Amino acid sequence: MTATDPVALTSALIRCPSVTPAEGGALTLLEQVLSDAGFTCTRADRDDVSNLFARWGDKGHEKTFGFNGHTDVVPVGDAAAWTHDPFGAEVVDGVMYGRGTTDMKSGVAAFAAAAIDFVRDTPPDGAVILTITGDEEGDAVNGTTALLDYMAGAGEKMSVCLVGEPTCPNHMGEMIKIGRRGSMTAWFTVTGVQGHSAYPHRANNPLNGMARLMDRLASHTLDSGSEHFDASTLAIVTIDTGNPATNVIPAQARAAVNIRFNELHSGASLTEWLQGEADRVAGDFGLKVEMEVKISGESFITPPGDLSELVSRAVQAETNQVPELSTTGGTSDARFVKAHCPVVEFGLVGKTMHQVDECVEVAQIHQLKSIYTRILKDYFA
Amino acid sequence: MTATDPVALTSALIRCPSVTPAEGGALTLLEQVLSDAGFTCTRADRDDVSNLFARWGDKGHEKTFGFNGHTDVVPVGDAAAWTHDPFGAEVVDGVMYGRGTTDMKSGVAAFAAAAIDFVRDTPPDGAVILTITGDEEGDAVNGTTALLDYMAGAGEKMSVCLVGEPTCPNHMGEMIKIGRRGSMTAWFTVTGVQGHSAYPHRANNPLNGMARLMDRLASHTLDSGSEHFDASTLAIVTIDTGNPATNVIPAQARAAVNIRFNELHSGASLTEWLQGEADRVAGDFGLKVEMEVKISGESFITPPGDLSELVSRAVQAETNQVPELSTTGGTSDARFVKAHCPVVEFGLVGKTMHQVDECVEVAQIHQLKSIYTRILKDYFA
Repeated sequence: MTATDPVALTSALIRCPSVTPAEGGALTLLEQVLSDAGFTCTRADRDDVSNLFARWGDKGHEKTFGFNGHTDVVPVGDAAAWTHDPFGAEVVDGVMYGRGTTDMKSGVAAFAAAAIDFVRDTPPDGAVILTITGDEEGDAVNGTTALLDYMAGAGEKMSVCLVGEPTCPNHMGEMIKIGRRGSMTAWFTVTGVQGHSAYPHRANNPLNGMARLMDRLASHTLDSGSEHFDASTLAIVTIDTGNPATNVIPAQARAAVNIRFNELHSGASLTEWLQGEADRVAGDFGLKVEMEVKISGESFITPPGDLSELVSRAVQAETNQVPELSTTGGTSDARFVKAHCPVVEFGLVGKTMHQVDECVEVAQIHQLKSIYTRILKDYFA
Repeated sequence: MTATDPVALTSALIRCPSVTPAEGGALTLLEQVLSDAGFTCTRADRDDVSNLFARWGDKGHEKTFGFNGHTDVVPVGDAAAWTHDPFGAEVVDGVMYGRGTTDMKSGVAAFAAAAIDFVRDTPPDGAVILTITGDEEGDAVNGTTALLDYMAGAGEKMSVCLVGEPTCPNHMGEMIKIGRRGSMTAWFTVTGVQGHSAYPHRANNPLNGMARLMDRLASHTLDSGSEHFDASTLAIVTIDTGNPATNVIPAQARAAVNIRFNELHSGASLTEWLQGEADRVAGDFGLKVEMEVKISGESFITPPGDLSELVSRAVQAETNQVPELSTTGGTSDARFVKAHCPVVEFGLVGKTMHQVDECVEVAQIHQLKSIYTRILKDYFA
């Protein structure tokens, strides 16, 4: 039979305007294609988010290879700045343009095409599961999490999972992600006593404490990295007061810091540290310092081993590159999958993701399908 | 002849809605009253500001007593919060309500009434000058400055000057101001390199330098006061970024500090210090730190001596209070008059100035006229 064309599938997906949380026809299309290929498909939608679960082979098979990805895309942004229709999938000189070409409709198309052809051409003794969400770019509360919740309830299980996010900084094949740093944000509100600038002793300036607190947090070295991770980082993202009157000491100031942390910390340990610093400034300055924390994800790692070696061998075979096993970058849905089974991430070059004129080399889509196909063959060999 | 009633004159002035820079009829009224009393009146208007110069007696007399004040008032603010018409001059239980009752139409009415009656009843060998502006609460660039410019051009000169601003914190007669601290504001713009919160090493966060700079400035002790002045103070009035994205390190941040300084500093010396601190942070963090400075007024003092003793004796005689000679408070037009002649300030209790339901005890207006009258008598005795 004819090989499934991952480029045609990518094109079709790009033409679905699936800006989070809109489904845009993308998951419906995949459900049709996968059903036609013999996959059992279930929509694990939750609230306004659509999610697709697809399995070929027996439920609960101890050898079940999983893929994870998303069809939702970030907004177009300044539409006038695009030189190609963001939902046109136009191909010029071997490059396909469109929102989601990189992040990550090509990845989804490549693993779907690889899985379809693989189970048809060489049906394995095992199962292949595809978990595809419509909410990775948004809050991600009803996306892969909903899929995993559905699977837990339905007795569905992946033995290992490959997330098809773009992972290569510049060249195809140069990087596999085996973990991610954790991410959290803390918002501080410092409240003092308003007053006239001429009489600071009658006021209590929240900005004195805020400046000290921010300087202390930004100056602190969290760690100097670990075996598999870069050093944890803290970035002050904003300090705001909104006081236009130069003769007024404000009553309140706000700030936020974002922390990316490795496995030497946890959201809880960092919250405790931040609270300690906040309390210290509150005490030193006699100010009220309130803190709110949101932990977007704990750090996680799938230590180098069977899964990363499997992916690495396939990448080397298809690209002649020895991929680096990395834990850099922001968060991805691998942080949710980690609780379910060992997970690594491998995909395209991510350079243009979220940008105007996001694009992908058509040849890379074919190459990615070949890599995914080889991974499946080797896994079930 | 009948004594000029300072309360009636205050009422009439309150009914003139002279919110800066509107003249509101206030200076026209005073010009009429003073002309009728034999004063030579000249309008020293400049741009959109009205100013009144009035002299009784010979131009250039070596014994010329001057008064300075303003008829403009700050805006009403939340009109619905007033329980009396802000321009009604309503008197309830011996208290007159209205915008400007304290700051400072009562003061102007009291010195005008005192001057009119004094020169009529006991014509002195000398001159009395009244300089009344319509721009003290605003930018003050076309107010007392314009009057002094007019005087310089016209060969008019005050030997000494009393500014009739409210000077008493709580009780009538408790404070004379013999100087004021200087005031300046510095605005800082720190520019770095924008980036993703996950990769702070690829960005250069302007907030790190901003927090350090603000902490250093706020922690610095400028001085511990001097013979006649309180310690100089610095207040951070705002730090702003306006970055809502917790995954973005901003490119730029802004802040402003306000300094009130005694004679141990000047606008120039403080500008040099601030620039040094800005440069140091710029160097330490590799950031661009820009600074803009506005010096609202240098510090000044009329050292205790003939003028302050003259005023002090009159206050003691009329109130049985020994007034403190103070240099506290914000700025006033005395900062401009200081370049022209020795100047002190004495007036009402200022508690309700700029507030809703600003008010004055009617009896205090009479008492203030008595004090100003006694000062004139003693000066020319």
